Amino acid sequence: MYPKTIQKLIDLFSKFPTVGPRTAARFVFYLIKLPQTELEELSSYLKELKKSIKMCSWCFNSFDPSLRSGQASSEQAGSEEVCPICEDKTRDKSLLCIIEKETDLTAIEKTKKYKGLYFILGGIINLKKKDKKDIRIGQLKERIKNNGFKEIIIAINPTTEGEITRLLLERELRPFNIKITHLGRGLPMGGELEYADPDTLSSSFDSRK
Amino acid sequence: MYPKTIQKLIDLFSKFPTVGPRTAARFVFYLIKLPQTELEELSSYLKELKKSIKMCSWCFNSFDPSLRSGQASSEQAGSEEVCPICEDKTRDKSLLCIIEKETDLTAIEKTKKYKGLYFILGGIINLKKKDKKDIRIGQLKERIKNNGFKEIIIAINPTTEGEITRLLLERELRPFNIKITHLGRGLPMGGELEYADPDTLSSSFDSRK
Amino acid sequence: MYPKTIQKLIDLFSKFPTVGPRTAARFVFYLIKLPQTELEELSSYLKELKKSIKMCSWCFNSFDPSLRSGQASSEQAGSEEVCPICEDKTRDKSLLCIIEKETDLTAIEKTKKYKGLYFILGGIINLKKKDKKDIRIGQLKERIKNNGFKEIIIAINPTTEGEITRLLLERELRPFNIKITHLGRGLPMGGELEYADPDTLSSSFDSRK
Amino acid sequence: MYPKTIQKLIDLFSKFPTVGPRTAARFVFYLIKLPQTELEELSSYLKELKKSIKMCSWCFNSFDPSLRSGQASSEQAGSEEVCPICEDKTRDKSLLCIIEKETDLTAIEKTKKYKGLYFILGGIINLKKKDKKDIRIGQLKERIKNNGFKEIIIAINPTTEGEITRLLLERELRPFNIKITHLGRGLPMGGELEYADPDTLSSSFDSRK
Repeated sequence: MYPKTIQKLIDLFSKFPTVGPRTAARFVFYLIKLPQTELEELSSYLKELKKSIKMCSWCFNSFDPSLRSGQASSEQAGSEEVCPICEDKTRDKSLLCIIEKETDLTAIEKTKKYKGLYFILGGIINLKKKDKKDIRIGQLKERIKNNGFKEIIIAINPTTEGEITRLLLERELRPFNIKITHLGRGLPMGGELEYADPDTLSSSFDSRK
Repeated sequence: MYPKTIQKLIDLFSKFPTVGPRTAARFVFYLIKLPQTELEELSSYLKELKKSIKMCSWCFNSFDPSLRSGQASSEQAGSEEVCPICEDKTRDKSLLCIIEKETDLTAIEKTKKYKGLYFILGGIINLKKKDKKDIRIGQLKERIKNNGFKEIIIAINPTTEGEITRLLLERELRPFNIKITHLGRGLPMGGELEYADPDTLSSSFDSRK
Repeated sequence: MYPKTIQKLIDLFSKFPTVGPRTAARFVFYLIKLPQTELEELSSYLKELKKSIKMCSWCFNSFDPSLRSGQASSEQAGSEEVCPICEDKTRDKSLLCIIEKETDLTAIEKTKKYKGLYFILGGIINLKKKDKKDIRIGQLKERIKNNGFKEIIIAINPTTEGEITRLLLERELRPFNIKITHLGRGLPMGGELEYADPDTLSSSFDSRK
Repeated sequence: MYPKTIQKLIDLFSKFPTVGPRTAARFVFYLIKLPQTELEELSSYLKELKKSIKMCSWCFNSFDPSLRSGQASSEQAGSEEVCPICEDKTRDKSLLCIIEKETDLTAIEKTKKYKGLYFILGGIINLKKKDKKDIRIGQLKERIKNNGFKEIIIAINPTTEGEITRLLLERELRPFNIKITHLGRGLPMGGELEYADPDTLSSSFDSRK
């Protein structure tokens, strides 16, 4: 019913996370009203997206290689490139924080609380798929080997699938004999005792201060 | 915090309707994982979007000019191009349906109920902006003049702003002395008498069948 | 964990429609703070509820028998009592509106649109239970027999189960050879064309005015 | 429109927390269908509610005085009555947990984590009313005086108003020179790093284990 280009874009936007065909149609009619220059800007950033960013060879974080400082790259000459966090000499190399995905890294960096290194697992156990291929457990073990970490913090969402992933990681990493911790639970800002599950409330008592 | 291209795309997606910065970030990390060929496909459709479609010079509907039948264009040679609905000789030229936007046209066409012409108003009265510049009332009047319509159906959403727009249209079009109607109200599929407003329920009694 | 009376009241309130144990607990702690006189008022109205109201022997509407006018009861002396709507001589006795439940009657009366009689069905087809015992189809047929109705309006919610009930009623009442109608569908106040299902939108075109 | 008793009950139920007139009407029509014995049971528990429970003279918890053990009441003969928690000799009398309301006490008891005493504040600071009359700060101070508490845990919801109440309590109780703590924050069960506020996520790092 829609012209071909419109329908094709609706189909492509419908694959975006959280987007259905109706929202996709709203996106396209929003775009039609934009000036051609803005469409070309969006078009060009999309085309360059994968070329303009690199994935850190150590922690799998995305980064803009043009922003890396000169001396760091020469220091690691010959090696694959690492992200600004991995090459930052002021970060605490004895701490490793394992996270599921890049947006979790951003959320943690915003707290300015954590100053160690990260490792992006790339996924968590999916109870429906029973498929661990997206999870970089092999690479994680290689990173931990001979790196002198004093603590490994598993910062995976405390959801059912996240907890199962955490238990798997704890079992897999136990042989390294490094202290393994995970994020404390508690009432979040705005939470209510009355509606908290007993585990969460119990943890809030443990971590009182 | 994100690499420049990622941040720029987050900013651009954040302007899309219904999208905030967090959803925009999810879009970008979804895109990063796509193969480059799919990114280039999306990129190329976006760039071509405005070129590949035309806006109907009569009803303001978007259409794909390459899909128009040959004889129709020769018939209107020299004139501006019109959309497949406007040039379809089987449609009832005595009926005009005024709608707010293109997705409403799609919704009505899906019902297969209406076989007349459309006019896309381009907007409705915005109570906050008090601004009518997006609404094509002047062009609407020109279309109605000397076109022999027997009925004009105002198919604007029965929201507060939609109702005000309808009343404005009824006043503006009264001098043409054409029958003006608007969509009947009633309980929608899945609706409940108990929670219907009295006007809606009252209309449901009126239009019982 | 709670004192017995509190726990017992939580259990009783938890059976109320839409109420779970947490809301029930909030109800009880709200009640504890009320003055004893207000608790006794509530207690006394609850005890008197069933005694103070009667169910109309004709339409199954609840009513307060002390409010009935004298002459009506003498007129129907010997017969069971009927509600103020059934005994109201100004109502149109040629119209019958079949509804599911008492709150639907209240909703329709608020529109001041309908002036005929009602019949409260007492329930609709429940697809899970496949159980029609709550639906007063036998009594409905008796009411219709020899009563000279000119139109029977089925005003059941246009939900899936409501529609199945309507189809059942239409089949059961066909032998009476009376005009049977049902409420018209359409966009409700505040509805949007774009999100309406095709049947609803199609009906809105049919009942345009 | 409804009979008087029905309307009166709708009015009374409409004052219940979270209940509006429509839900109140559903409650009443649910009650009408109950057997008279069940209505009388509800009616009688409501009438007895305030008589059957006592408010603890120490912590303001509700309790059923008939359930108190004999020796405890004789031991405190002449004094006002206290609740089972306050009179339980196995509880840790060096810990005091300040809570807003009774349902919070129930939530904490369910965790089986805390074994000290409670004090029910009866309310928190209401930013709209600027009214502290419901908050038992005077009684709280009296309870703390000469009671040998080693730690006072403020277990108030970490909402805006709850936090203001906690800060007020910390200021008011500082002169007692007792360790004052509050519940730790963190990601709750089912929470997600990406959507956590920075304070909550930061606390989750602090209380990792």
